[in-house]
Amino acid sequence: MDAYFDNLETRDHSAREAALFAQLSVQVRHARETAPYYHRILRDVDAEALVDRAALATLPVTRKSDLIACQRAELPFGGLVAVPPGRLRRIFQSPGPIYDAEGHGPDAWRTARAFHAAGFRPEDIIHNTFSYHLTPAGVMVESGAEALGCAVIPAGTGNSDLQVRVIEDVRPRCYAGTPSFLRILISKARELGADISSLKTASVAAEALPPRLRAELNEAGIAVTQWYATADLGLIAYESSAMEGMIVDEGVIVEIVRPGTGDALAEGEVGEVVVTTFSRDYPLIRFATGDLSAVLAGQSPCGRTNMRLKGWLGRADQTAKVKGMFVHPSQVAEVTRRHPGIVKARLVVSRQDEKDVMTLYCAGDGIDVAAVARTLQMVCTVSGRVELSAPDSLPNDGKVIDDIRTLD
Amino acid sequence: MDAYFDNLETRDHSAREAALFAQLSVQVRHARETAPYYHRILRDVDAEALVDRAALATLPVTRKSDLIACQRAELPFGGLVAVPPGRLRRIFQSPGPIYDAEGHGPDAWRTARAFHAAGFRPEDIIHNTFSYHLTPAGVMVESGAEALGCAVIPAGTGNSDLQVRVIEDVRPRCYAGTPSFLRILISKARELGADISSLKTASVAAEALPPRLRAELNEAGIAVTQWYATADLGLIAYESSAMEGMIVDEGVIVEIVRPGTGDALAEGEVGEVVVTTFSRDYPLIRFATGDLSAVLAGQSPCGRTNMRLKGWLGRADQTAKVKGMFVHPSQVAEVTRRHPGIVKARLVVSRQDEKDVMTLYCAGDGIDVAAVARTLQMVCTVSGRVELSAPDSLPNDGKVIDDIRTLD
Repeated sequence: MDAYFDNLETRDHSAREAALFAQLSVQVRHARETAPYYHRILRDVDAEALVDRAALATLPVTRKSDLIACQRAELPFGGLVAVPPGRLRRIFQSPGPIYDAEGHGPDAWRTARAFHAAGFRPEDIIHNTFSYHLTPAGVMVESGAEALGCAVIPAGTGNSDLQVRVIEDVRPRCYAGTPSFLRILISKARELGADISSLKTASVAAEALPPRLRAELNEAGIAVTQWYATADLGLIAYESSAMEGMIVDEGVIVEIVRPGTGDALAEGEVGEVVVTTFSRDYPLIRFATGDLSAVLAGQSPCGRTNMRLKGWLGRADQTAKVKGMFVHPSQVAEVTRRHPGIVKARLVVSRQDEKDVMTLYCAGDGIDVAAVARTLQMVCTVSGRVELSAPDSLPNDGKVIDDIRTLD
Repeated sequence: MDAYFDNLETRDHSAREAALFAQLSVQVRHARETAPYYHRILRDVDAEALVDRAALATLPVTRKSDLIACQRAELPFGGLVAVPPGRLRRIFQSPGPIYDAEGHGPDAWRTARAFHAAGFRPEDIIHNTFSYHLTPAGVMVESGAEALGCAVIPAGTGNSDLQVRVIEDVRPRCYAGTPSFLRILISKARELGADISSLKTASVAAEALPPRLRAELNEAGIAVTQWYATADLGLIAYESSAMEGMIVDEGVIVEIVRPGTGDALAEGEVGEVVVTTFSRDYPLIRFATGDLSAVLAGQSPCGRTNMRLKGWLGRADQTAKVKGMFVHPSQVAEVTRRHPGIVKARLVVSRQDEKDVMTLYCAGDGIDVAAVARTLQMVCTVSGRVELSAPDSLPNDGKVIDDIRTLD
């Protein structure tokens, strides 16, 4: 019977809470003994008293937005990692820059559970279109694929011609990547008359999945479920075939807190996703992701009993995820710093043809639009348009990044 | 004592030959029992008689240039792979297309030995600039790094600004990639005033290393050794600090044959590199790589006793390796097929500022140079210039690809 990845998914609430909180005190002791940052912030905590969510809520929150400064002060990991960098398996650079640590051990990113729920099974071939370069996205798929016993085609980004060819020739059944790139592959295959009908199931992440896009992919014969992860810690939650919210991974404790605070919110209230992991190499305790979500009441009809999230409901800060990459207000500032002619700038993130588009509106003197576009691409690692604006046409609302995408 | 990766490197000649040929009969039986292609070509071979090089030389050669047609007839692997595709670990697409199979097991590409000889040691951090997308180059580095106990920064290609930043912040001691990209990183670091002096040792591959470039990298404080591998089978040979030829890997049998035949050549004669591997998942028996080399007489002063090659001396066919990627005459033909205005074309591969440059000279009518350049990039996955020529200015020598690079 392979409806579930393991029997952790169907245990009852109290058994799960007891098991997770039994690990928590061990993890807190481990973190403060091995990682200088946790030694500082958790020194006086009574680890044995961390027996439930109320006790967890007394611990300090570590915000993703603070990681940049924290790491800068103590390169490369701000004292949050428990081993010397050379003992890690891989080190990544996310925009910011924020350095991400991957430890050793099977399925370090815990993605196998999400892929199992998506219908991936042993000996399936997964066509993986996430990037492997600097970002951990590509390797997150490898992590779960290896644990499940699937083969991977590490296709990466771009080269849709070659990708359609490899799908036609090798006939993978599974797709991992963004939903918008899957749409690009389907349309490229139509253009080239290539048969990619081997693809039956897709596990998508890193951007919003509007219902219209999901319906379009389904019409192409591909079942689509989502997973939600961050480059810091791996899988947080995943959809099952029930398609009712995202079920929290069995390997983390998730809280929803009032943005900017560590205060837990009531079921249904929109707040910031805070995650505690049990990684030995890179322990994250009450890590505030900057993502907004809410707890969905009740239990999934698929039989999985863990807490469910409503999915990704935006960012608690002005950081935007564009084409799967985070763009921070500090990066927009860096672009304007390099072009002294720019007096005021506003990055608008929108969606066109199911694809993310970003446009930097600039006001000032003697601005070389092409040069600014090159800098924008270099600093953000995502390409964008640059347009000139009159200074008073840019709203005075404190926003550096204006995300006008809707999730319909 | 860690001068050698293991004691296989210093065993005497007869012990090595005995050990390799003891494995050969096992491998031939395994291959013909599990892979339909080998069942066809090795059915009548007396496996027990394969006790030495003379016996090996009686087996048929499988040419890399034949793999395209062979795989096309029986997708994806032409019957050469011993397991169903879903039981592999990864599947790659090399130009051609040729599909490459990666099996399971530690250090499937056998690169740890080369990295050890380059001076990489446990807990070192390796900055890896090979691509992970579609090609196995990136993962070949992961393979050896994991076996050695090193951490990897999977930097991939491009983004030299971000790469310089991650080197400055994370301070890796080791570099893996092409020598020309290392040169780009050094010059980018100078431009940005970034400190990348943590880099002390580089293990380079996938393109020629002219002595002048090696000297320039040495002047930047970086020791450089080369390794030689193919996407089909992994490591073939590697340099040691003795810098006298490339020492053959302990996990393969290498022969040098007269190009186009299976006849072994005498020591010192230039011929095609033919390799036999012991991979269980993707057995390659007398695989002709298309690369030219020669056996270097004598033994390395570093104490390693295996046969040495003179390094890469060109291609036995017109295939050229440009910026680390193979470009085949069939790809040039595909570009011209897509632009019917082109009557005659010749791809010239040259070197400028230590970088590979390719230029497609086209003769014909109504040729849109920009459109041809886009097709060239798409088909070859390497960018090139396109220039118009008068039909009679292109030599009539049967060459589709003219490689005018010199190795000085």
